[in-house]
Amino acid sequence: VLVRNLWLSLDPYMRGRMDESKSYAASQALDAPMIGGTAGEVVASNSPDFKAGDKVVCGNGGWQLYAIQKPAMLRKVDDSRVPLQAFVGPLGMPGVTAWVGVNRIIQPKAGETVVCSAATGAVGTVVGQIVKAKGARAVGIAGGPEKCKFAVEELGYDLCVDHKAADFAKQLTAATPSGVDGLFENVGGQLFALTMARMNDFGRIAICGLIASYDGAQKTSLSDMRVILTRRLMMRGFIVTDFLPDWPAALGELIGLASTGKLKWREMIAQGIESAPSAFLGMLKGKNFGKQLVKLT
Amino acid sequence: VLVRNLWLSLDPYMRGRMDESKSYAASQALDAPMIGGTAGEVVASNSPDFKAGDKVVCGNGGWQLYAIQKPAMLRKVDDSRVPLQAFVGPLGMPGVTAWVGVNRIIQPKAGETVVCSAATGAVGTVVGQIVKAKGARAVGIAGGPEKCKFAVEELGYDLCVDHKAADFAKQLTAATPSGVDGLFENVGGQLFALTMARMNDFGRIAICGLIASYDGAQKTSLSDMRVILTRRLMMRGFIVTDFLPDWPAALGELIGLASTGKLKWREMIAQGIESAPSAFLGMLKGKNFGKQLVKLT
Repeated sequence: VLVRNLWLSLDPYMRGRMDESKSYAASQALDAPMIGGTAGEVVASNSPDFKAGDKVVCGNGGWQLYAIQKPAMLRKVDDSRVPLQAFVGPLGMPGVTAWVGVNRIIQPKAGETVVCSAATGAVGTVVGQIVKAKGARAVGIAGGPEKCKFAVEELGYDLCVDHKAADFAKQLTAATPSGVDGLFENVGGQLFALTMARMNDFGRIAICGLIASYDGAQKTSLSDMRVILTRRLMMRGFIVTDFLPDWPAALGELIGLASTGKLKWREMIAQGIESAPSAFLGMLKGKNFGKQLVKLT
Repeated sequence: VLVRNLWLSLDPYMRGRMDESKSYAASQALDAPMIGGTAGEVVASNSPDFKAGDKVVCGNGGWQLYAIQKPAMLRKVDDSRVPLQAFVGPLGMPGVTAWVGVNRIIQPKAGETVVCSAATGAVGTVVGQIVKAKGARAVGIAGGPEKCKFAVEELGYDLCVDHKAADFAKQLTAATPSGVDGLFENVGGQLFALTMARMNDFGRIAICGLIASYDGAQKTSLSDMRVILTRRLMMRGFIVTDFLPDWPAALGELIGLASTGKLKWREMIAQGIESAPSAFLGMLKGKNFGKQLVKLT
């Protein structure tokens, strides 16, 4: 199936592919198109399942304008009620990541408090809304007052703490007066250590990303493991592709919410494939506000 | 019910009770009998459920020769086929601890490799035997060649690595050629860090004890959390008293095995209550070999 890529998704996991060290995926090959999720349109097809004009998403359409894909790598989507690019954002991999971390790992109960870092990022955007739908309290962490305001006013977080504030630790404590029952960790570094100190007994910690440590600048460490023992914490690292059986239910739920306007998100659009590298680097530094996309046309 | 305590169990958790810092249990009160599991004999009873001569175990009979207990705090045991003191060892709290960590957290599959530190301690003794019964490979860590020999020849560990050996890290790697799928951690410190480096994708880590860190001498830390993410590890701290519904099944299984001679263990007996403090301090330093008991009569 020949696909014209219309939208390229930029996601933190790509940074890991650029290392040679052992990770959960093979390293990005040199002199090959950079990996990346895409949304696009079928141009020509030798498969009975796809025809020209179909809108499709692909887990690895790559940083390129056109790609020839096997049918099994494509998912047909209906962009009549939501914009096509949402299918690489809240209605795609990042949305399912949020769904899996909340529903399969944190499993919040009504009244509990769940903290999510990078609260206005592609994943964190959806985390807060799912947590709230379960009757739990959602506390975001984001960089700067503008993002924090958006997290509360648009995404429904009960509170959002600015990690750039000088008194972040104090604000986090004030925002979690009953402690933290669930932590959806996207960032790591010092934020992680401070949030871990707030965990309640039997808390669950989903390790989804550690973007602060991807460049080796700031290590994410747990200096005293006794907190795991004495508070009986459960911590689990996960990758959304390990939960393929959950994708249909998760996507069904998210698309249903989006179609009726009940799921909110925000996009940041870089124009043209030549803007992808700088947009990607900006995202790793938190310069994006919402889902970072590249419009390829 | 007036009980004469015949056996006092010495367990690492007692050390935690001596700190004032927040832990999973209230600190030991000053000028009150020190907490401790006991096995003994009923002397007199105002409860229809107990009569003089009954053998009983008590989660907190205390470091004392006699105690008056409420009936709900006592469990009647049959010492006709196993010695009474086993009910504070492999057929009591330490045995159930092993059972819970293996069955509820690590959940080993046949062919997997499970590592257990303090392999000849009261808990580790039972861990290896349960792991083997599930068709998995059990690798112990113990201090000194004598303990390692016992772990393999009596307890059924496939291999046991001596953490006092200069080339411990090399030996651990050789003993786990396919990596580690489950870790039953009783010790912490540097042993923990080295074993974590051997974890396979989707490995499970049960944090049962961190005895190396109880005195603050050697911190147990995880210096790079990325291992949790990239290998999708699950780590959980636990305390056996959080799993009360599992106790009857666990005890039934362990008592069944012991009654037919299929469960092995070793005891170290200190004589007289006056020997309890030195025996306890010795255990924290690994001087015990097997379950540390105090014979009170």
